[in-house]
Amino acid sequence: MGTCYGNQQATAGPLTWPGPVLYIGSALPLAEKALIARIRRQAHPSRRVLAGIGDDCAVLRIPPGHEALVTTDFSLEGIHFRRGWHSAKAIGHRCLTRGLSDIAAMGGDPVAAFLSLALPGSLPQKWVNGFMRGLLDLADKFGVSLAGGDTAESPHGVLADIVVLGSVPRGKAILRSGAKPGDGIYVSGQLGGSTAALQQMRKHPKRKLNPKDFPRHFFPEPRLVLGRMLREKGLASAMIDLSDGLSTDLVHICAESRVGAELQAEAIPVATIGKPAREVARHFALHGGEDYELLFTVPRGQRVPSQIAAVPITQIGRITRGRNIILRDQTGVRRELVAQGWEHFRG
Amino acid sequence: MGTCYGNQQATAGPLTWPGPVLYIGSALPLAEKALIARIRRQAHPSRRVLAGIGDDCAVLRIPPGHEALVTTDFSLEGIHFRRGWHSAKAIGHRCLTRGLSDIAAMGGDPVAAFLSLALPGSLPQKWVNGFMRGLLDLADKFGVSLAGGDTAESPHGVLADIVVLGSVPRGKAILRSGAKPGDGIYVSGQLGGSTAALQQMRKHPKRKLNPKDFPRHFFPEPRLVLGRMLREKGLASAMIDLSDGLSTDLVHICAESRVGAELQAEAIPVATIGKPAREVARHFALHGGEDYELLFTVPRGQRVPSQIAAVPITQIGRITRGRNIILRDQTGVRRELVAQGWEHFRG
Repeated sequence: MGTCYGNQQATAGPLTWPGPVLYIGSALPLAEKALIARIRRQAHPSRRVLAGIGDDCAVLRIPPGHEALVTTDFSLEGIHFRRGWHSAKAIGHRCLTRGLSDIAAMGGDPVAAFLSLALPGSLPQKWVNGFMRGLLDLADKFGVSLAGGDTAESPHGVLADIVVLGSVPRGKAILRSGAKPGDGIYVSGQLGGSTAALQQMRKHPKRKLNPKDFPRHFFPEPRLVLGRMLREKGLASAMIDLSDGLSTDLVHICAESRVGAELQAEAIPVATIGKPAREVARHFALHGGEDYELLFTVPRGQRVPSQIAAVPITQIGRITRGRNIILRDQTGVRRELVAQGWEHFRG
Repeated sequence: MGTCYGNQQATAGPLTWPGPVLYIGSALPLAEKALIARIRRQAHPSRRVLAGIGDDCAVLRIPPGHEALVTTDFSLEGIHFRRGWHSAKAIGHRCLTRGLSDIAAMGGDPVAAFLSLALPGSLPQKWVNGFMRGLLDLADKFGVSLAGGDTAESPHGVLADIVVLGSVPRGKAILRSGAKPGDGIYVSGQLGGSTAALQQMRKHPKRKLNPKDFPRHFFPEPRLVLGRMLREKGLASAMIDLSDGLSTDLVHICAESRVGAELQAEAIPVATIGKPAREVARHFALHGGEDYELLFTVPRGQRVPSQIAAVPITQIGRITRGRNIILRDQTGVRRELVAQGWEHFRG
C-alpha cells in the first residue's frame, strides 16, 4: 500500500470502513475530494518529492552531499491527546510538530512527511478536515510536502503515526552524544507551559482552555530555524528536543555522551501564563514534557547570543565529568535531579 | 522522541505503561534487555545507518546517484491480524513484509526499517519477544537495519506502523504510471492462497491452521530480488505489489497509467493447498489480498522468462487503450472485472 492512501485488506470480521476518508478514486463527498485534491497538490510541487501519493512508495531526492534523517512519532487518542480537550486542528498541528521537532534537534531540514492515519467509523468528516488542516497548515509554513502514508479503520479511537524525512549536510547532524565536560547547557524559550495547560484540563475537565493562552501546548512551533542556525554556526555539540521534559531529556544527552550535568535551578526559564503574567509551577519546567523547545550544549568559550532566530536562549548549567545530574539552588544546596518526565504525570 | 524508543509524555489520565517494553535505560528484566541489545546491535553494523536508535532521528546514507524510497504501513490488531489466529512471530514477519513488499514493487533496495509500536499494558513480554523475533529474522534475511521508531502505551490492542526507507538508482523507480497499451500483464507466484487461509480461520475460528500449509499468509516473503531484477533488466514498465487483491491493484496501475486491461481468466495462476494439492476458489485469486506477489507490465516484444529469481512468472493479460478492466473466459465471453479487494471480505 505504502503511499497509496488506498484500500486495506481486512483480516478482521465485520468491518465498518470509515467512509474511506482519504481514499482516492472512490465516490467521495465534496469535502473529502477537496481534501484529497489538496493533499495530492501538496505532494507534488516540491522539487525533492519526485513521486508522492499514488504509488507503492514515495520517491524523494536527498541533496548531494547530504544524509537522510528519519523520525517516527505516534499521536494516539487517549494517550497523546483527548478529543474533548484538544481541537482537531490542534491535534493535527501537534502531530506534525512531534516529527518536525526531532528534525530540528538534529539541525536538519525537513523534506517530506508521511502520515499513517487510522480512524474509527463513527468519526465525523468535519473532524478529519480539521485535523488535516492543522497538519497541512504547519507543513505549508515550513515547506514540507505530505508525500504519502497509510489509512486504515481504527479498532478504537484516532491513531496517527507521523514520519518525517529530513536532510542534513554529511557528518553535520547534531547528535545527543557530542557533549563534553565543561560545555554549557542551554535551552530555548520557556519551559513548563505545556504541562500547565494539561494540569488545568485535568483539574477542570469540562472547562475549555483558550489555545491562545497556552500556545506551546496547543500549537507548538517546532524550532527548525533555531536548530538549523545552531548547526550552521557550529555552536551546538549535542542537542535534543524537549518532548519528555527537561529532567528526562537531559538524561538522554548525558547517557549518550557519557557525562553528567549541573543545573542552576534559578536559571531555568519558567513559562508564564495569564494577565498579569505569573510563572507556572517550577516542577512543570523541570519535569513537564511537550514544550518542544531545544536543549543543547555548547563548548566552553563559545559566545551564545541571548536570542537566536527570535527565540530567547538561556544557559541553565554545565556538563560535568560525573554521571549524575545535579540541581543547585540559589543558596548553593546541591541535590540529585531524578528524571521524572511522563512518569510524574502518570497518576 | 523519534528513534529513541524512549519515554512518552502522557496526555491522558491514569497510565499503565506496559513495563516499558523497549525502553532503553530503565530497570528491565533480562529478556527485554537482551531484546534491546539485539535491536541496538541490529541498528549499527550497517554502513548505511550512521546513527540509529538512541537519537532524535536516525541518520542514514543514500548511495550517490540514488533516490530515496519511503513507505509506511499499519498493522492493527483486529484489522490486519488477530492474536488468536496469528502467532506473534507471524504478525511481526507480516508487519515488515508489508513495507518491504512496497520497496520491491518500486524495484528498490531496502536500507532501514522503523517501527512505531503501541502495546496494551496487559500484553505478555513473551508476545513482544515473538513479534520482534519474526520482524528481525526477516530484516536479517534481507540485510535491513531496524534503525528506530517509537513506543507508546496502546489504548486498545497491538498497534504497529512499519516504515521502510529504501533506495533506487536515480530515475529508475518502477512507478504505477508507466503502463502503455499493448504491454503484457504479468504476475509472480500464485494468487489467492492468503485469502484461502483467512477464509478457513473465519469458518473455524477455534481450529489452528498450520502456517506451513499457508506460507503466503503466515510468512510471506517480499519479492525483493525479483523486483530488483526487473528494474535492472529494464523489463517492467509499471509495477505494484498485490496487497489488496488483483482486481483492486490492477485498477491502481490502470488509473495511474490512464489505460485499461484485458485479463485471460484461465491464465491467472491460482494457489493450491493441501495434499493432494487442490486449487483455492478462483475469486480468491481475483479479489483476495495479502499475497504480496508482484503485478507488472512489460512492453510488447520483450521476452519474459517463465521464472525470475526462482519465482514463476505468468502472463495473465494485456494493457488496452480503454479505461475498463475486462475478464475474458475460456469460451471468449468478456465481462467487466469490478474491483472488490477488501470490500469483498467486509461482511
